[in-house]
Amino acid sequence: MKLPSYITDFDSWKKGFQFYTTINIRFSETDMFGHVNNVSPFIYFEEARINYLNKLGVFGTLDQETEKVPVVGDLQCDFLQQMYFGEQIKLFVKVDYVGKSSIDIHYMAKNGKDDICLTGRGRIVQISSKTGKSEPFNEEQIKILQHKK
Amino acid sequence: MKLPSYITDFDSWKKGFQFYTTINIRFSETDMFGHVNNVSPFIYFEEARINYLNKLGVFGTLDQETEKVPVVGDLQCDFLQQMYFGEQIKLFVKVDYVGKSSIDIHYMAKNGKDDICLTGRGRIVQISSKTGKSEPFNEEQIKILQHKK
Amino acid sequence: MKLPSYITDFDSWKKGFQFYTTINIRFSETDMFGHVNNVSPFIYFEEARINYLNKLGVFGTLDQETEKVPVVGDLQCDFLQQMYFGEQIKLFVKVDYVGKSSIDIHYMAKNGKDDICLTGRGRIVQISSKTGKSEPFNEEQIKILQHKK
Amino acid sequence: MKLPSYITDFDSWKKGFQFYTTINIRFSETDMFGHVNNVSPFIYFEEARINYLNKLGVFGTLDQETEKVPVVGDLQCDFLQQMYFGEQIKLFVKVDYVGKSSIDIHYMAKNGKDDICLTGRGRIVQISSKTGKSEPFNEEQIKILQHKK
Repeated sequence: MKLPSYITDFDSWKKGFQFYTTINIRFSETDMFGHVNNVSPFIYFEEARINYLNKLGVFGTLDQETEKVPVVGDLQCDFLQQMYFGEQIKLFVKVDYVGKSSIDIHYMAKNGKDDICLTGRGRIVQISSKTGKSEPFNEEQIKILQHKK
Repeated sequence: MKLPSYITDFDSWKKGFQFYTTINIRFSETDMFGHVNNVSPFIYFEEARINYLNKLGVFGTLDQETEKVPVVGDLQCDFLQQMYFGEQIKLFVKVDYVGKSSIDIHYMAKNGKDDICLTGRGRIVQISSKTGKSEPFNEEQIKILQHKK
Repeated sequence: MKLPSYITDFDSWKKGFQFYTTINIRFSETDMFGHVNNVSPFIYFEEARINYLNKLGVFGTLDQETEKVPVVGDLQCDFLQQMYFGEQIKLFVKVDYVGKSSIDIHYMAKNGKDDICLTGRGRIVQISSKTGKSEPFNEEQIKILQHKK
Repeated sequence: MKLPSYITDFDSWKKGFQFYTTINIRFSETDMFGHVNNVSPFIYFEEARINYLNKLGVFGTLDQETEKVPVVGDLQCDFLQQMYFGEQIKLFVKVDYVGKSSIDIHYMAKNGKDDICLTGRGRIVQISSKTGKSEPFNEEQIKILQHKK
């Protein structure tokens, strides 16, 4: 298997994950090809990412009053194996890189047979909900993110 | 075919529709049974309803600053025929009843063969986005709604 | 609160539910009004219904090879309270009526404060995936359904 | 703006697009942040990609009987500007690279102000729906793809 550009060493990359969220695939997330639609993994990435970031407590709660909000800068997903309704998916998440006002988050999904069905990554940027501009992390946020890195 | 409770005479009910929106079924809106998932019609109802209400101009634009917003009180859909990806759906909408602070909206979906595949209805309530309480329609709104009834 | 037509006595109706599924609201299931989009409850109904029917074992597994498949005849939902991201929803399901080839399923959703935010119902029809026609329940299915009624 | 890795020269990259699909953003595709949810662009990519591939006629019709089906190998999206409900999006698609049994498809989304709000790419692999293995393109497919490249 050719490695995605965001993975240098697969084994160490896999070992880097501690946190995961269990995803229940919704029937409506399948498509007429009989498998999970290719859009659905990004729904699962979002669910796992929010659970992870809430656990870290690096961003405020996700309500519209918060001034600093995390937004998605980019997203990518590699589809290694088809996913099917009824499978319980473990979606692993980790912070791979911490920048000035953004972080790189990596994803790995495993099915019930412990096969990796998805890998992915994406940049999360902290912006001001007022100005829409990027907002550098404060010391406390950096501390949390570095430690979890 | 047994008529849904919200239809008394089918022919006159059908004749009551003038406005429709053309719906492009998204591939992601199908499911592993090979047809359009049963959740999707409510997506289409919403799209057609918003287009219709915007055309009537009875509610402000749907942004979060508006004080009076239309919310869904209830929704129902009868599935007469399966829908498939690639079909272009005509989704007809009409105001069937005008209340003090709510309206009853009816829906009828036709596929490319002009077969009726869905019928439905739902109550839309005007509430204050501040208080969350229902807000009676003003004279202008009533006029618009009565005329379109 | 005015009762939906499918509920005669609210207290006994509520007491009729034993089974429930815990629903994790996905962020993507909210909308720009800040709450859970009105389409999402039907996603939750489907998830809870499938879990319930699988537990009963009244239909085969939901794969495309099965000859008899359950399809949705109609669906309705009453929105009693707005739902928000972060809430964990208990979605209760019960078989309310058993017909020759169809069943009526009722739904009740409770939020974390144990408030009822949704009630609903819908008819599930057993059809042949080959002919598309309705298929009467066999004795074993009736037994299961009657007992769980 | 830092260019995504899949774009070498932005101007010539933009010029490479001829085909586009107009996307009507669904209200249910927004989220509580008030904008289009970050999952939705992948729904739009899929809709535009299917329209484009159907126009090329390089794959059979998307039904489950087809033996050769196109599946998604990977997907990525860069979010340049937030998208909002009510905007009409022009989603441009082009084949960027043709391999033995896969193609690289690029995406560019423009809003009503003609601003680029999304860029993206993804690999589509032709597989056998029977074996699940990749299926090399035949001469006719190559001809079509090369010509449209």
